[in-house]
Amino acid sequence: MSLSAMSKPILYSYWRSSCSWRVRIALNLKEIPYDIKPISLIKSGGEQHCNEYREVNPMEQVPALQIDGHTLVESLAIMHYLEETRPQRPLLPQDVLKRAKVREICEVIASGVQPLQNLIVLIHVGEEKKKEWAQHWITRGFRAIEKLLSTSAGKFCVGDEITLADCCLVPQVFNARRFHVDLRPYPIILRIDRELEGHPAFRAAHPSNQPDCPPEAAK
Amino acid sequence: MSLSAMSKPILYSYWRSSCSWRVRIALNLKEIPYDIKPISLIKSGGEQHCNEYREVNPMEQVPALQIDGHTLVESLAIMHYLEETRPQRPLLPQDVLKRAKVREICEVIASGVQPLQNLIVLIHVGEEKKKEWAQHWITRGFRAIEKLLSTSAGKFCVGDEITLADCCLVPQVFNARRFHVDLRPYPIILRIDRELEGHPAFRAAHPSNQPDCPPEAAK
Repeated sequence: MSLSAMSKPILYSYWRSSCSWRVRIALNLKEIPYDIKPISLIKSGGEQHCNEYREVNPMEQVPALQIDGHTLVESLAIMHYLEETRPQRPLLPQDVLKRAKVREICEVIASGVQPLQNLIVLIHVGEEKKKEWAQHWITRGFRAIEKLLSTSAGKFCVGDEITLADCCLVPQVFNARRFHVDLRPYPIILRIDRELEGHPAFRAAHPSNQPDCPPEAAK
Repeated sequence: MSLSAMSKPILYSYWRSSCSWRVRIALNLKEIPYDIKPISLIKSGGEQHCNEYREVNPMEQVPALQIDGHTLVESLAIMHYLEETRPQRPLLPQDVLKRAKVREICEVIASGVQPLQNLIVLIHVGEEKKKEWAQHWITRGFRAIEKLLSTSAGKFCVGDEITLADCCLVPQVFNARRFHVDLRPYPIILRIDRELEGHPAFRAAHPSNQPDCPPEAAK
């Protein structure tokens, strides 16, 4: 193995990015030590757009993970890579149907909700309409997730073990609160979120515990 | 096995939906016989919003697949289920890094491009701005995909075998053409699209060959 393959993984992350947060949770759950390289999405028009970072992630967004001598992008692709190379503390169930249920919830969030209330999209939507826009898409997604959870959930999103679905859900609930979405219609989502808020791997991944969290936002 | 578990899979599909199309390609490549139940996204305000279909897919969108006695939603979750239950004609490479590269491309399309030029989003954006909006997000995604392909592609998106990435790419190229995106800056994307347009599994999955394709749009 080359030197870079042996060194500690580097996560390009922004404290409040829900996609970075998903990967931070997965790394913590699997107890993989990593260093964070903060990429500010707001400083100087967004550090993710600079030439150097574009070489890391051509989508000009976080996260990206340097690991095993490779650079990986896209949160679910990264989490699947971690799952397939670091089998300790599995984040996908053994049962093939349950795996599908985990991926359904991940995809509703990663394709059906988050991209539509992403910072870069909200800039295009405009200041005046952005709250209503974000609320619309989060509400639509949460209605569907609550319904999916009504048959899949045990203690967590799918059964009684923490999975990739939980890694995606908790950051999205945080975003929902930021946009003042009324969460009372989603008791299962709220119960799971509460269940996980004190978990050490989730707590350490929380935006307020990131090195680039501004002091006024820290808990 | 129950009767429903033994019967032919049913794909809820709309002829022009790129997410339905991805799954049709995967089913065809794996030579899994299936029946199509068309769900019109435009008739009577969208059949996907009716109560009966909402029970099938709470996100009120296509595709959904009834298979092995279960109902699955979200195209990538469905394709992974097919891959894990029907190992014939694999759509993910054996090599773990290549698998990550496949999933990166899938996710750029499924989370970074398609959701933003989805019919339901374009309705919210409004008639006047919708073309420019769709072009913006497709162009952003294609720039990144072309860059990813520059290191991953062989004959197809990742190496010389057809993978889930190709199942996602071809329908997205079709959408790009619908919105008159200039594709000349993306020679690798164009080459792979041309390579696959004559493939029987891709041709049979094409919108113009669907039972619900209106006569005026059929080839």
